[in-house]
Amino acid sequence: MSIGKSVPRIDAFEKVTGRAKYTDDLVERHALIAKVLHATIAHGLVTHIDTREAARIPGVVQILTCFDVPDIPFPTAGHPWSTDPTHQDPTDRKLLNRHVRLYGDDIAAVVAQDEVAASRALRAIKVDYETYPFLLTPEQAMQEGAPRIHEHCPGNILKHTAMEDGDFAKATEEAGLLHFEETYETPIVQHCHIEPAVSFAYMEGGRVVVVSSTQIPHILRRIVAQALGLPWGKVRIIKPFVGGGFGNKQDALYEPLNAYLSLRLGGALVKLELSREELFFATRVRHGMQIRLSSYLRPNGRLVARQYTAYSNQGAYGSHGHSIAAKGTNVFRQLYQDEKARKLDIFTVYTNTATAGAMRGYGTPQTVFAIESHMDDMARALNLDPIDFRFMNLMPQGYKDPFSKNVNYFDSFQQCVEQGKAYMHWDEKRQAYQHQSGPLRRGVGMALFWYNTGVWPISIEVSSCRMVLNQDGSVQVQLGETEIGQGADTIFAQMTSHTLGIPLEAVHVVSTQDTDITPFGTGAYGSRQSYVGGMAVHKTALILREKVLSLAETYTGMQAASLDICGGIIVLRSLNNKPVMSLGELATEVLYSPVHAEHLTAETTLQAKSNAYSFGCAFAEVEVDMPVGKVRLLDMINLHDCGKLLNPQLAQAQVHGGMSMAIGYALSEQLLYDTLTGRLLNGTFLDYKLATIMDHPRLAAAFVENYEPSGAYGSKALGEPPAVPGAPAIRNAVLHATGVGIPRIPLTPHVLVPAFKQAGLI
Amino acid sequence: MSIGKSVPRIDAFEKVTGRAKYTDDLVERHALIAKVLHATIAHGLVTHIDTREAARIPGVVQILTCFDVPDIPFPTAGHPWSTDPTHQDPTDRKLLNRHVRLYGDDIAAVVAQDEVAASRALRAIKVDYETYPFLLTPEQAMQEGAPRIHEHCPGNILKHTAMEDGDFAKATEEAGLLHFEETYETPIVQHCHIEPAVSFAYMEGGRVVVVSSTQIPHILRRIVAQALGLPWGKVRIIKPFVGGGFGNKQDALYEPLNAYLSLRLGGALVKLELSREELFFATRVRHGMQIRLSSYLRPNGRLVARQYTAYSNQGAYGSHGHSIAAKGTNVFRQLYQDEKARKLDIFTVYTNTATAGAMRGYGTPQTVFAIESHMDDMARALNLDPIDFRFMNLMPQGYKDPFSKNVNYFDSFQQCVEQGKAYMHWDEKRQAYQHQSGPLRRGVGMALFWYNTGVWPISIEVSSCRMVLNQDGSVQVQLGETEIGQGADTIFAQMTSHTLGIPLEAVHVVSTQDTDITPFGTGAYGSRQSYVGGMAVHKTALILREKVLSLAETYTGMQAASLDICGGIIVLRSLNNKPVMSLGELATEVLYSPVHAEHLTAETTLQAKSNAYSFGCAFAEVEVDMPVGKVRLLDMINLHDCGKLLNPQLAQAQVHGGMSMAIGYALSEQLLYDTLTGRLLNGTFLDYKLATIMDHPRLAAAFVENYEPSGAYGSKALGEPPAVPGAPAIRNAVLHATGVGIPRIPLTPHVLVPAFKQAGLI
Repeated sequence: MSIGKSVPRIDAFEKVTGRAKYTDDLVERHALIAKVLHATIAHGLVTHIDTREAARIPGVVQILTCFDVPDIPFPTAGHPWSTDPTHQDPTDRKLLNRHVRLYGDDIAAVVAQDEVAASRALRAIKVDYETYPFLLTPEQAMQEGAPRIHEHCPGNILKHTAMEDGDFAKATEEAGLLHFEETYETPIVQHCHIEPAVSFAYMEGGRVVVVSSTQIPHILRRIVAQALGLPWGKVRIIKPFVGGGFGNKQDALYEPLNAYLSLRLGGALVKLELSREELFFATRVRHGMQIRLSSYLRPNGRLVARQYTAYSNQGAYGSHGHSIAAKGTNVFRQLYQDEKARKLDIFTVYTNTATAGAMRGYGTPQTVFAIESHMDDMARALNLDPIDFRFMNLMPQGYKDPFSKNVNYFDSFQQCVEQGKAYMHWDEKRQAYQHQSGPLRRGVGMALFWYNTGVWPISIEVSSCRMVLNQDGSVQVQLGETEIGQGADTIFAQMTSHTLGIPLEAVHVVSTQDTDITPFGTGAYGSRQSYVGGMAVHKTALILREKVLSLAETYTGMQAASLDICGGIIVLRSLNNKPVMSLGELATEVLYSPVHAEHLTAETTLQAKSNAYSFGCAFAEVEVDMPVGKVRLLDMINLHDCGKLLNPQLAQAQVHGGMSMAIGYALSEQLLYDTLTGRLLNGTFLDYKLATIMDHPRLAAAFVENYEPSGAYGSKALGEPPAVPGAPAIRNAVLHATGVGIPRIPLTPHVLVPAFKQAGLI
Repeated sequence: MSIGKSVPRIDAFEKVTGRAKYTDDLVERHALIAKVLHATIAHGLVTHIDTREAARIPGVVQILTCFDVPDIPFPTAGHPWSTDPTHQDPTDRKLLNRHVRLYGDDIAAVVAQDEVAASRALRAIKVDYETYPFLLTPEQAMQEGAPRIHEHCPGNILKHTAMEDGDFAKATEEAGLLHFEETYETPIVQHCHIEPAVSFAYMEGGRVVVVSSTQIPHILRRIVAQALGLPWGKVRIIKPFVGGGFGNKQDALYEPLNAYLSLRLGGALVKLELSREELFFATRVRHGMQIRLSSYLRPNGRLVARQYTAYSNQGAYGSHGHSIAAKGTNVFRQLYQDEKARKLDIFTVYTNTATAGAMRGYGTPQTVFAIESHMDDMARALNLDPIDFRFMNLMPQGYKDPFSKNVNYFDSFQQCVEQGKAYMHWDEKRQAYQHQSGPLRRGVGMALFWYNTGVWPISIEVSSCRMVLNQDGSVQVQLGETEIGQGADTIFAQMTSHTLGIPLEAVHVVSTQDTDITPFGTGAYGSRQSYVGGMAVHKTALILREKVLSLAETYTGMQAASLDICGGIIVLRSLNNKPVMSLGELATEVLYSPVHAEHLTAETTLQAKSNAYSFGCAFAEVEVDMPVGKVRLLDMINLHDCGKLLNPQLAQAQVHGGMSMAIGYALSEQLLYDTLTGRLLNGTFLDYKLATIMDHPRLAAAFVENYEPSGAYGSKALGEPPAVPGAPAIRNAVLHATGVGIPRIPLTPHVLVPAFKQAGLI
């Protein structure tokens, strides 16, 4: 019964001792080294590439340019494939691109015997360009006459969606309504996982093998095959231990190019590892968004109608595209309930910046920042307590979303907020900090959110699992769902132990996915793994259990229905769990039976057709140094209803990590572009201000455990949610401290000082 | 329909280009190096080991002596485990042994940072012994008063079996019987596979992982666990490409010690690779045997009663033990049919020589040498054509063995012999070479044999298989049965292609076994894999096919019974195989179905409860240089009824390899011991005279294809049989050429010159 216990991570020893093998640990030393030549213009056309000098550098094995790659545009997003063409991801990128769409676009690649030769060759390649005007923001990109970033895409709008619930125009005509409107902006940020994007590729038996640090091995197989024009079965992906991804590795990054470079060399072993600097501009980032909120409400605080208009900066290539802006709109439509109408317009727009993809929260951090900032702005204007104001309009207990069928069974918001208020001494501090002057001012703020668990019904939710019983009663568990540092393997081990009735240490989770043999699963994203993967583990364990008990009936003469497995022992339920034989004995007898020998395994596919609301909030207390515009975070707590806690300590670690990302998002992180060249200005760890331990107060995490009935173990999303509510909570605390509602993050001195000046505070 | 075609090996490209990864290719360079200290006495006791000087050598990490290892005697034979204790292998060896039982026994091990430090340390270890008299032959070992090699084993007889069919004593009393008696001897030989015994071990997740060049990964897992006293599930074995084994790797060799050395170092990566010289004395060899045949027959050539007395030299440790001598007796009892009675006594005897284990033919090369030499000796004495004489007494068509239930359905002997006679121009040459004089004399000889297919009913026969369908209609196939160079993976691919109805190139056989995930199979031995593994492939492919056609019914509206799969396309049988949809389309639709998503796989265990006679013979022509006693092999053909030929070219390659081993066995190979020290004299490739291409004439292989009804694809044993009949055929050709019937192999000048002198020929 290990569910709900803080058992240590099953990979702790390997990771702490440095024995865990990551992708780069596995590549043989004789591997050829690939490096990518990045464009030095932000928008234009490569007219000519001169590789002659580079080719003469000793050790250079191959130079490939954008003139040499197959004319196969391919998608990169880590979404399950859809056989419905209208539901497939944009295919707008080739292995190397002649049309340069961002400063740093991939225009050539070098393969050499070592790093030095590869780097020298990159420097020796001469490129001629024809340059176009570049476009850094959706606003610029949507302007009349703006150059097209993708030929097929007029106006540079990857996609536009308009929705209206009720009659918005009519609703706003109600007499006496107050109207608030503000435009909120969130920055482009990067995931900053520890392990860079790294892969190596080779051929074996006429097939391409790619070993990669990825969240999505099975999806990656499909994408690599598509990019290279190969049948999918000709590609094999292997995923070793992964040092973090946060969504960046929920995309095909350089694996297709890496595979192609090997294929062009007859299958030679080629490694492609990005530098930290390349990660910033050449992998994925979180979409910067501009969200205009226009709200009509009665003086008592009741929302009547709201309008949501969002511009999502897609950057140079499609990647996850419109899904991210679309996901944000779900929050808008469900978190607060307008009495009469809602209207939405969302635009995902190509620009000449880094390609935006999936990142922890998947559109939600942006939307929740806008919505929750707006709620506080309105509460302040109405002189209402922001929490009271929220609850007047909040998704009520019992609410069921008609699309996802998600139900708010327990009024988890109330339960989370109560705990948060108590922790933060909310009422006292809201009062105490009301009238401050002087250079240091304190405030408390909060923000709510909800999050989905998995992606049904937008995409399919499939997870397969296989279990192999050993002769000592232990089992191996294989899933397509990936451990990327978050502790998934430990959770799967706990689940297996629980359902099969064996000790935790008797569960061996196969952490390495190999698409040749690993049961299909779509991987780490959408906060889906414990929920969907958990259902697959549960279903498979029950199949294995049934096989075991049925055979135990043969061997013990006892009815299977009377038997159970407890602690790895087959027991008689009616006799107070009296031991009958061990699972290991049974497995041994069965495997070596001269009468009926069987290797006991179980395998099945689980298709989830459910989803679940995960709820929560953050409370933050800040101290603002007014003259210098510096925010110091004094205290912060996240409260989550993620259902049953599978492993409290792991859950807490998830929350702490998410809070740290939220702190950086609120206070310091943003990618900045040079408006003269279109080049990324701060894509290094010296210049990009990732939140560190020096920026953190003690981080508190607390939970409301409302057992989720649709799941196998009562859990729901916790992977991404912790990153969502922190930024608006901090922003609202600054509002409380200063009276100034900043409509953008990060809250740097560059933003705060002018705002405080404008407000006459300094 | 690839069964029966000479398709190229699926691993040909990897192996020819050097890309195939063998065990040593996979070990990381920072691995610690283990080396074993071998005793320098042949029998005695280690009284003291001084490791102080060795421990001071820089780079030495660990020194382990026979005083430090667990007191757990363990078995090493690659047999399936039996839950019946009376059917288990001898457990008479520890990881390191204080009681030295052969010159070269393992008494200590060193782990160091590199080869040099490890070798220096070995030289610096000082050992004190108490010496006992050593025993090199069963005769010496069985003498009254001989010291015990194993404490529990009086008389050094590992096992003795006596059998009698009919009343032997009474049968021999028949009046007018002729009596022939001779003692035949076969040498101790070594497998001489290309890749040495090599493994590396480390710990992961509290479990021991051993990567090893083995024929039997699943069995090895059990043995390593037993040797270390661990639950079996705590051990994981991985088998990469293997460069040959021939039965030597059907034993646990140094894997248990390697695992223990890693475990003692907290799971550090430790590699243990043997030198060629160590392979000769410290791994396994083929049992040398002394077989006395005593035959009673009528003057017309009809056998009435025979007696078979065999002494099998087990060497120092039990390994496969008595099974090998026992297997030989089956040949004796079934190949020729005595009219009245048979009597057998077989002894397996410990000696202070290299441990004898499994080697291609498993006791049969020895027994067949004795029986077939004896038949020729008697035919000559009776002045009968040796083939006619054989057929007077041979197992008749329709014969069914009461124990194995094997049936000689087709009189395959007749069919093979007819072809062989024709190829060799037997009648003409028997005539032409009858009266020769002068220094060069020619002769033709032949020998028959039969062989089992697999090990049922002596042991269980189990093979499991899993197939994974890809979205392009290709499949991965996983089996516990191992490719060790013989072409098994190619055969499994052909079978899968055949039964599933997909192109051969759409089958991807997973060549690497990993006991954590690979379906259980016992591995490469007993010429079982195509037969038993083939049944598993067949059963699994049918399960997958049924799943596919049932789903195709859903997707196409056509009855599954009307559908078939041809060339990877689902077709309508009644409409002349009109295509309906491709397997790949179906797999894609099913995997991504929003209604019923499924990752299509199939897995099952096959238990074979059958066996099959494989038949054949060899014909050889020799030229004997009388004065120097040198035999030149002029021509040789093997003829096999191995059922349906799955891949003629691979079959031919198997036969050629076996013939080469038989040539060495007949003419040059033997391990010789120094009678003064008990040390192996010729355990190097300079001194051990392995047959090479220079010793071979053109080797001819021909087949009789009698479809074996008990198998899934009509095939039966061909792995080992080719090595069996060659030596007696050559020996009988020398008899024909010279009139001298030599009762021992190899037929070196040291044997022939004295024999020719004694016969007055030189």
